[in-house]
Amino acid sequence: MNLIFPLHGSQLRFLLSSFVAILAISICSVADAADPLPSWNGEPAKTAILEFVAAVTDKNGKDYVEPAARIATFDNDGTLWVEYPMYTQALFAFDRVKALAPQHPEWKTTQPFKGVLEGDMKAVGAAGMKGLMQIIMATHSGMTAAEFDQEVSTWLATTKQPKFKRLYTELVYQPQLELLEYLRANGFKTFIVSGGGMAFMRPNSEKLYGIPPEQVVGSSVVAEFQVKDGKPALVRTPKIGFINDKAGKPVGIYEHIGRRPILAFGNSDADMQMIEFTMAGEGRRLGLFVHHTDAEREYAYDRKSHVGTLDKALDQAGANDWIIVSMKDDWISIFPSSRS
Amino acid sequence: MNLIFPLHGSQLRFLLSSFVAILAISICSVADAADPLPSWNGEPAKTAILEFVAAVTDKNGKDYVEPAARIATFDNDGTLWVEYPMYTQALFAFDRVKALAPQHPEWKTTQPFKGVLEGDMKAVGAAGMKGLMQIIMATHSGMTAAEFDQEVSTWLATTKQPKFKRLYTELVYQPQLELLEYLRANGFKTFIVSGGGMAFMRPNSEKLYGIPPEQVVGSSVVAEFQVKDGKPALVRTPKIGFINDKAGKPVGIYEHIGRRPILAFGNSDADMQMIEFTMAGEGRRLGLFVHHTDAEREYAYDRKSHVGTLDKALDQAGANDWIIVSMKDDWISIFPSSRS
Repeated sequence: MNLIFPLHGSQLRFLLSSFVAILAISICSVADAADPLPSWNGEPAKTAILEFVAAVTDKNGKDYVEPAARIATFDNDGTLWVEYPMYTQALFAFDRVKALAPQHPEWKTTQPFKGVLEGDMKAVGAAGMKGLMQIIMATHSGMTAAEFDQEVSTWLATTKQPKFKRLYTELVYQPQLELLEYLRANGFKTFIVSGGGMAFMRPNSEKLYGIPPEQVVGSSVVAEFQVKDGKPALVRTPKIGFINDKAGKPVGIYEHIGRRPILAFGNSDADMQMIEFTMAGEGRRLGLFVHHTDAEREYAYDRKSHVGTLDKALDQAGANDWIIVSMKDDWISIFPSSRS
Repeated sequence: MNLIFPLHGSQLRFLLSSFVAILAISICSVADAADPLPSWNGEPAKTAILEFVAAVTDKNGKDYVEPAARIATFDNDGTLWVEYPMYTQALFAFDRVKALAPQHPEWKTTQPFKGVLEGDMKAVGAAGMKGLMQIIMATHSGMTAAEFDQEVSTWLATTKQPKFKRLYTELVYQPQLELLEYLRANGFKTFIVSGGGMAFMRPNSEKLYGIPPEQVVGSSVVAEFQVKDGKPALVRTPKIGFINDKAGKPVGIYEHIGRRPILAFGNSDADMQMIEFTMAGEGRRLGLFVHHTDAEREYAYDRKSHVGTLDKALDQAGANDWIIVSMKDDWISIFPSSRS
């Protein structure tokens, strides 16, 4: 018997296979231990997120939350993708006005359509939210749901953002993609809760964020069931269905999700009610705002901005334990390096 | 060397472990091959379901559907649980009228409330759908979302159905529980799309059907975000939000799911539009109706019923390839034998 290696072949094989198994487990552990949020940086945001997720997933901890109740809601414009200098959906609507203009000769002399056609954004701006709604209603209705889906997808596949010279679908925030994935890996169900149109976001939400259409909550026009050309179809009418903004956000959450989120992420005062509603539930909660502080890599805007105004929320964050995420300081990268 | 068993220990161990592995695989195969719909019986419904699921999940087949698009929608009353002789939610509303009567002395002399208080169902019936909506509005509003959830759950935990002497939550259809589970095991996402109130169904949908609240689409009252007693809350107002019935069902599907189902299951003419909309999509589709034909084990009703009227759909089923599921013939068992 070999005293240096006093084992039978089968024993050796057993030990070797055990070693391989332990090695495999160790490799997996190293992978698990790898930073799930590599584009996030330092205090307090990243630490707050990691501690929150650890707390609500710890079965033996006092803050444990059942997977079914791990609902996380994210605003879209300015929270998951670029909204400056103008909401992407508004730019889509402006391009639709130009495309539809031949069928609407009256638009040449009627604001805010005249302003859009002449590139006079001051005139469009002067028409305010009411004017923007007129444009949205005129351009987002009169077609079937399927036709509208197609128009949105075609536009997004071909239109580039002026500053970055990239498709809007490439201007999603890399740190947020990591956060969405990290939350889902920890049993969360992730939702978009946006003031933007549901039908504008849904055709691409799965591809952009891994969020399926049924988990996208937003504003809507009234749809009608009609038999069109002998086929049953949903037709979009020029009537506002629901405005999923400000105090509308908790209402939209109730209608579409039916449960109070335990984490909510926004970027403007219009997200305050969603975050208040989230934080007011029992147990541990997390509310966060993106603060656009990076003029170089993205944009810097807050209190006096014409889009994504962040003013009251900045003042009230401290007293409410809301986390303000500084884009410049807390995000190591902003956009994915490449994206199909 | 033993000639009868001419193997080294390690070889023997390898063979034995292989045998165990093969045995394990065999047991799993047997389990997979077991009937996934043991409470379903014969032609054509069961076969149609099995063939449909096999076709849309066969990656190499012409009818393959990506898992994300495997959306199945089910009506609730009369399709997933008993609706006869009266919708469960209406009975809940009648009991709420009785509970709230002391605060509403005027109800003693005002129909349809008077009828409810005096047990005069003829008077209640005479008030029609408008009267029922009055009762629903008076009893389903004026409280927070959380308070209403609690009222529903308490009522369902304590109120028994007169014929079966069982809780309403026990009167769900066993064959449908099997079908829901079978669809989910095949990558489907299952939704309820009901004329009933979302807020009435959601507190128990996960427990009853394995369907989470966010996958329950139904009628609603308008909710408002308010700060109540210093806490942000959703308050239910006595205004109709949306009636998710008949032509409202495809609209509700568009609003909440954003995709056309590939399978839809109803039991009344009020489900026809949902099933037409489902069947009108491209690719393989399945539309089914429960036909209540079992006076002994459940109820027999169809063309002239005051609830769940199934009339036009019966006439049009053949021409539209809709499957009519006869409760008496196609369902081996109706209710789960025991249920917590």
